[in-house]
Amino acid sequence: MCGIVGYIGKQAAIPILVNGLKKLEYRGYDSAGVAVLDPEGIMVTKSVGKLVALEEELGTDYSQSSIGIGHTRWATHGRPSYLNAHPHCDCGQNFVVVHNGIIENYLELKDGLLEKGHHFVSETDTEVLAHLVEDYYEGDLEDAVRKVLKTIHGSYAMVVLSRKDPDKLVAARKDSPMVVGLGDGEFFVASDITAILNYTRQVYILDDGEMVVITDDGIKVTDFEGNPHTKEIYDVKWDAVAAEKGGYEHFMLKEIHEQPRALKDTMLGRLEEERVVLQEVDLTLDQLAQINKVYIVACGTAWHAGLVGKTLIERWAHLPVEVDIASEFRYRSPLVDEHTLVVVVSQSGETADTLAALREAKNRGARVVAVTNVVGSTVSREAHDVIFTWAGPEIAVASTKAYTTQLEGMVLLGLYLAQVKGTLLSDKIGGIINALKRIPAQVQEILDQESLIKELAKSFVKVEDAFFIGRSLDWAVAMEGSLKLKEISYIHAEAYAAGELKHGTLALITEDTPVIALATQRDVFDKTVSNVKEVKARDAKVIGLTYKGNTSLVKSVDHVIYIPETLDELAPILTVIPLQLLSYYVSVARGCDVDKPRNLAKSVTVE
Amino acid sequence: MCGIVGYIGKQAAIPILVNGLKKLEYRGYDSAGVAVLDPEGIMVTKSVGKLVALEEELGTDYSQSSIGIGHTRWATHGRPSYLNAHPHCDCGQNFVVVHNGIIENYLELKDGLLEKGHHFVSETDTEVLAHLVEDYYEGDLEDAVRKVLKTIHGSYAMVVLSRKDPDKLVAARKDSPMVVGLGDGEFFVASDITAILNYTRQVYILDDGEMVVITDDGIKVTDFEGNPHTKEIYDVKWDAVAAEKGGYEHFMLKEIHEQPRALKDTMLGRLEEERVVLQEVDLTLDQLAQINKVYIVACGTAWHAGLVGKTLIERWAHLPVEVDIASEFRYRSPLVDEHTLVVVVSQSGETADTLAALREAKNRGARVVAVTNVVGSTVSREAHDVIFTWAGPEIAVASTKAYTTQLEGMVLLGLYLAQVKGTLLSDKIGGIINALKRIPAQVQEILDQESLIKELAKSFVKVEDAFFIGRSLDWAVAMEGSLKLKEISYIHAEAYAAGELKHGTLALITEDTPVIALATQRDVFDKTVSNVKEVKARDAKVIGLTYKGNTSLVKSVDHVIYIPETLDELAPILTVIPLQLLSYYVSVARGCDVDKPRNLAKSVTVE
Repeated sequence: MCGIVGYIGKQAAIPILVNGLKKLEYRGYDSAGVAVLDPEGIMVTKSVGKLVALEEELGTDYSQSSIGIGHTRWATHGRPSYLNAHPHCDCGQNFVVVHNGIIENYLELKDGLLEKGHHFVSETDTEVLAHLVEDYYEGDLEDAVRKVLKTIHGSYAMVVLSRKDPDKLVAARKDSPMVVGLGDGEFFVASDITAILNYTRQVYILDDGEMVVITDDGIKVTDFEGNPHTKEIYDVKWDAVAAEKGGYEHFMLKEIHEQPRALKDTMLGRLEEERVVLQEVDLTLDQLAQINKVYIVACGTAWHAGLVGKTLIERWAHLPVEVDIASEFRYRSPLVDEHTLVVVVSQSGETADTLAALREAKNRGARVVAVTNVVGSTVSREAHDVIFTWAGPEIAVASTKAYTTQLEGMVLLGLYLAQVKGTLLSDKIGGIINALKRIPAQVQEILDQESLIKELAKSFVKVEDAFFIGRSLDWAVAMEGSLKLKEISYIHAEAYAAGELKHGTLALITEDTPVIALATQRDVFDKTVSNVKEVKARDAKVIGLTYKGNTSLVKSVDHVIYIPETLDELAPILTVIPLQLLSYYVSVARGCDVDKPRNLAKSVTVE
Repeated sequence: MCGIVGYIGKQAAIPILVNGLKKLEYRGYDSAGVAVLDPEGIMVTKSVGKLVALEEELGTDYSQSSIGIGHTRWATHGRPSYLNAHPHCDCGQNFVVVHNGIIENYLELKDGLLEKGHHFVSETDTEVLAHLVEDYYEGDLEDAVRKVLKTIHGSYAMVVLSRKDPDKLVAARKDSPMVVGLGDGEFFVASDITAILNYTRQVYILDDGEMVVITDDGIKVTDFEGNPHTKEIYDVKWDAVAAEKGGYEHFMLKEIHEQPRALKDTMLGRLEEERVVLQEVDLTLDQLAQINKVYIVACGTAWHAGLVGKTLIERWAHLPVEVDIASEFRYRSPLVDEHTLVVVVSQSGETADTLAALREAKNRGARVVAVTNVVGSTVSREAHDVIFTWAGPEIAVASTKAYTTQLEGMVLLGLYLAQVKGTLLSDKIGGIINALKRIPAQVQEILDQESLIKELAKSFVKVEDAFFIGRSLDWAVAMEGSLKLKEISYIHAEAYAAGELKHGTLALITEDTPVIALATQRDVFDKTVSNVKEVKARDAKVIGLTYKGNTSLVKSVDHVIYIPETLDELAPILTVIPLQLLSYYVSVARGCDVDKPRNLAKSVTVE
C-alpha cells in the first residue's frame, strides 16, 4: 500500500530514490523518507506531507552515497507523522528498514523487544523489523533477515540496509508486490515497476516467499530458507502511464484485482480461532448494555456497505440498526442520544456529509465507531473507535476494494458486537471466521473467470436501462452493482428489492431491459426465483447470480454467473465482484472514461 | 363512494334499479340492495357480494312497483354484511334510505336515538338517517328530511322513500355527487350519470346544499331551507365508457380530481379543535409507554406514504420508526416483539406481502395498526387498530387518491400518538389540525392550475430518463413522483436524496435528463438549492417545486411549480399533486394506456 524504492550502484542514490518515490505519489501519500549509507553511518531524512517537502528537507547539498532506500507512506499502524514515517532504524542505528504491508504479530513482538530493552520511537509495526534484525544479527545481514521472516506474520515487502554490511540490500516479499530492476552496473528494488521505469525495463518480479540479496556484483534470489531460486528476466513493455496502473489498463481494474490482497490485509491480526480482535475498538459489555439502537451513516458506496452491516449486526448482535444517508441524517433531527451507537463509513474519512453526521451524533452524546480506509483522516481522529480497512489507496472514482473491505469491516464489527454481547456462541463465531478466511481466495477464484464476464459485457454495449434485483443481502449488493454500472457506463441502472418490482417498476421491463438477478441468499431463494419468472414473463434478458452447485436457477434465466459457496452473510463480498467486472467491461466496451467518470469526484468533501 | 339509483315512473322499478347498479359495479362493490314501495309496505331485498347475488335473490317474480331506490355499497362504517347493506329502514318500516358518504356525528345522533327507544340493526351511519326521519316526521316527508339535513354533519348524497308519502322521492346532496334524470313521464336519481344513461341523457346535476323532491308530476329543487332553485337541463354527450369515468378521459384523472373530496372525507369526524379522534384506534398511554419501536410496513406507493409517516411520528411522537418493504420485512427476522408497534399500509387491504408481514408481526407479539382503504378487508380485520382512508374505490392502477389519503392517515396517526404520549402541546396539535383542514381546498387550488402542468408535460414526450430529487420529506415524495412516471409513462424515472446524487448518480445527468427538484422543506431549502446547482452545472433541465411566495428557487431552475403554503409536515400531500398531473399528462402525450399500464395489476395479491 505504501511505496518502496531501493538503489545500489555507482550514482548518487538520493536523486534516484526521490525520483522513484515521485512516480508513486499520484496515489496521495502522507509522508516520505529516504536513508542512505554514508561513511559516518546511516543518514535518514524524512518529512510529513507531499514529496516536495522531502525534497526541500534534502536541499541541494545531499549525500552522494550510492546505496539507499526510500519510502512513501500510506498510514496503517500509526497516524501520519514525522516519527511514523519510514525508514525506521534500530536502537544502534545499524539497520534501517522500509516496509509495505502489515506485521500482524507486531504488538507481541514489540512487547518482547521492549522487555529486552529496545527503545521504540514510532507507533508503527515496521519499526519492529529494524529492532528484530538488530536482535538477530550475528554478523550476517542475510541470516538475520531470514530469522526475522520466520518470526513475523503478516503481509509485507521490505528492504533492509545495514552499516555493518555496507554494500548490500536485503529484500523480501510476502503478499505485497516487489520487483528488482537490473541496470547497467546498478540495481533497483521497488514496490511498483513505475518507480524505476526511468532507469531500466529489465526486472525480476519477486514471488511470495522470495528473498533477494543485492550487491554491486549481482543478485541472489532465494526462498526464506535460503534455497536458491532461478528468476527469468521480465522485459517491461509498459509506458509510464500503464506502469502506474501495474500493467492494468485502468486503475479500477487494478483495484478490482487487488481485492484478495486488500481483504486479506483487512483481516490480518484481527482473527483468532473463535474470536475477533479489534485493537481500536473498545466497547465493553456494560457499555453495549446501554445501547438500544445502532445507526449506520454513510454516503454512496459506503452506504451500500452499511445496508449489509445492518443485517449482520441485527442478526448476530440482536441490536436494532437503522441505515441512513449522511446528507439526510444530519438534517432530520434523528433520535440519537447516549444510548445510540453510530457507525460512520467513509473510504477517505473526509466525506463532508459523513463527517458532519459524526459530529452531530457526538453532540447528541452517541458513541461513534468509524470504518475508514485512511489512517489519520478526520473521521478516524474524531470517532471514539475505528476499524481501518486496509485496502490501500483507491484511485479510480468508482469504488471497488474500498467497498469490499468495508463489507469486511461490517463483518468484523458484527462479530465483535455479538462477541461482547454474547449473542453468538464461540463455535458459531469460529465458523464465520473460518468462512471469512476463505473469502480472499474465493474472490481470486471469481477474478479468474474474468473472461466470461468480459464476454457477457458485450451484450450491454447498446443497453440504456438495466435492473438489478435481489432480496435481503442480495438487494443491498444489487444497489452497489447498479451504482457501479451507472457511474462508469452511464447506463440507467436501478436496483429493486425483488419482491417490490410488481408494485410499479415492472412496467419498465421489456425485452430490451436486462435484469441482473442476485440469488445467493438461501432462505429467500425460491421467492427470488418467483420474481425472476415475473420479469422473464415480460421477455427480459436475465442474468442470474448464485452459488456454484445450484442447479435450479439456470432453468429460469438466460445466463448464470456462479460464485463459490460461502455463508449467506459473507456472500455480498463475493457477489459484488462479478458486478464490478461487468461494470468495468461494459464501460470499456462503451468507450467511457472508466477511472474518471463525468461529473464525479473521488472524495466528496462538499455537501 | 357507494352507488345510488332511484326511480319513479310508470315502469317496474326493480329491473331499472338493478340495471343502474350494474353500471356502477365495475368499481368492485361489496353488497347491494333495493327497496320498492308495495301496497303492503316497503319491500327491501339485499345481498352480500356481487350484483348477480342480488339478482338471484330477487328472482323473476319480483315486485312490479314503479317507485324504488337501490344501492351498491363500498363499506366505510361497518364491514360488508347483509345487515350493513343498504337500503336502511326506521323502526316502523315507514321510511327507507340509501346514502353515500359519511355522517360525521352519527355516533352522537345514534346515542340520542337509542335513548328515545329507537332500535338499530346495522353498524352503519346511514341507519341513523332513517331513524332521524322517523323521529322528525310530522306528516310531511320533505319537512322531515329538511330537519335531518340540519342535524347531520358530514358528506352525503341520500335518497329517502316513505310509505306515508308513497309517490315521492326526496334526495339531497352535500360533498357527494348526485344527478336527477328526466325521462318521459319518469324520473331517475343517481350518484353517477352512468347508472341512468340507458334511460335518459337529460339531467339536472345537483349542487352542494341542494335538495330535490321528485313526484310523478315533476321535480322541485330547493336549498336546505326550502328556497326554490332553478336548474338548467344538462344534455349528457358522454358515451357509456366516458360516463363511468365521470366525464374524465381516464379513471386516473378522475381520481386525481377526487382528492379534495377524499381528503375531506378522511378527516371527517376525526378532527376536534386541538385533538384528533380515531374511533378504531385504541392505544393508551400505558400501552405506548411499552412501545420502543415503530415499524411501518408496506409495498409500492403505500411504502412511500410510510416514509412520510416515519418523519411525522419521529418528529411529533418521538418514537423511533423504521420503514420496511413488506416483501423484505417478512423474511428478514426483524427485531419485533411486544414492545413494537407495527403500522401496515395497504389500499386494498389484501396486498399479500403486507398481509404476511402483519401476521408475522402479530405472531411476534407486536401491536398492529392498519391504514387501509377497504373496510372489511383482511388487513383491516386482522389488525388490532385501523385507520380507514375514505378515498373510495380506486380503479386506475397508478394510485393517487389512495396515496394522499394514506399520507393523511399518517398525519392523523402521528398526531394521535403525540397526543396520547403528550409529546405535542394541544395548541401545537390545534395548529396542525387547522393547517390540515385547509389542505383539501389547497389541493383544489393546485388542480385548478392543471393546464400549466399539461403544458409542461409536452417537454417529456421524448424523454427516456428523469430524476426526482429532494431532501427529507421532499425525498419521500420524489419517490412517489418517480414511481408514477415510471408506471404509466415508462420513462425510467428515479428518485434520489438530493445530497446523495454526487456520490455516483450525477454521472447520468446530462442536458437530456430532466430533473424535478422538490424544495418545500424550509430547513433544508438552501441545501437543496445547492444540489440543484450541481445538476444545473451539468446542463440538466430543472423543474423546481416550492411554496408560493418563494422568490429564490426560480433563479436556479428552468421552471417552477408553486404550491400553496402549508406546514412542512403536510406539504407532501400538496407536493405530489402536480407530480400526479405531470405523470398523467406525460402518459397521455406518449400515447400510453394510463389506467392499465403494461405488466401491472391493481391489487397485488401474490408475493
